Amino acid sequence: MFELHPRLKADTIPVIDWPLCRILLMNECAWPWLVLVPRRHGITEIHELDAGDREMLIQEIAAISTRLQNLSGADKMNVAALGNMVPQLHIHIIARFKDDPAWPKPVFGFQAPNPYDAEFLAEHMPQMVDALGDGPG
Amino acid sequence: MFELHPRLKADTIPVIDWPLCRILLMNECAWPWLVLVPRRHGITEIHELDAGDREMLIQEIAAISTRLQNLSGADKMNVAALGNMVPQLHIHIIARFKDDPAWPKPVFGFQAPNPYDAEFLAEHMPQMVDALGDGPG
Repeated sequence: MFELHPRLKADTIPVIDWPLCRILLMNECAWPWLVLVPRRHGITEIHELDAGDREMLIQEIAAISTRLQNLSGADKMNVAALGNMVPQLHIHIIARFKDDPAWPKPVFGFQAPNPYDAEFLAEHMPQMVDALGDGPG
Repeated sequence: MFELHPRLKADTIPVIDWPLCRILLMNECAWPWLVLVPRRHGITEIHELDAGDREMLIQEIAAISTRLQNLSGADKMNVAALGNMVPQLHIHIIARFKDDPAWPKPVFGFQAPNPYDAEFLAEHMPQMVDALGDGPG
């Protein structure tokens, strides 16, 4: 049975479930940063998903990446499945700007987390859910 | 017309062309590290590929990742499309080990490049080409 890894649970805010993935917002206000977690038990690598799930994964990655880039006006999207610290398969989708604090380096481990303000989240989360919609179609 | 970005050309050794991607070996002997470049002109983001190319991309990512993990005996595979420095869409597939120099951090920018020895390459490249084969099927 699918259960979110405790570390991902601690570091993120749930946004919405899409057909394959749970979409999470990384609790880091320096970058618009979503995390996709395929709701499949015991998977650590993209190649462990079956072919149908892999196709759904790339369509969800593309759709989330398009929408997050449109919402944020990012210069570049970064897409990465690393998982050296949290083994459960998860894909980072990060909006990057040429004037962001880490540019052009990757954001991972760049600085200590800057969590969102609760009031900001309460105000903007419904818009985020609305803008993402319920699937890639 | 597809042309490999000069920076990717300088940093890698060509291995083989698959149906969608050109497969390159990063010239960095600290990690078994392949780079997949979809042979499409002017693409910088995964979501700019059409749906059919995206499906082929995820199947090629999965197949290369499986084969590189099997060849290397890696503990974890890292898959990433960043492109902040080289805009041409390219996907890193890196074999990671719990005792590698950067573990558990990402490898990007971790240390100055350690190019392969020419003799090592001449000996091992044919095996690499053979082990990868000509497509994901």
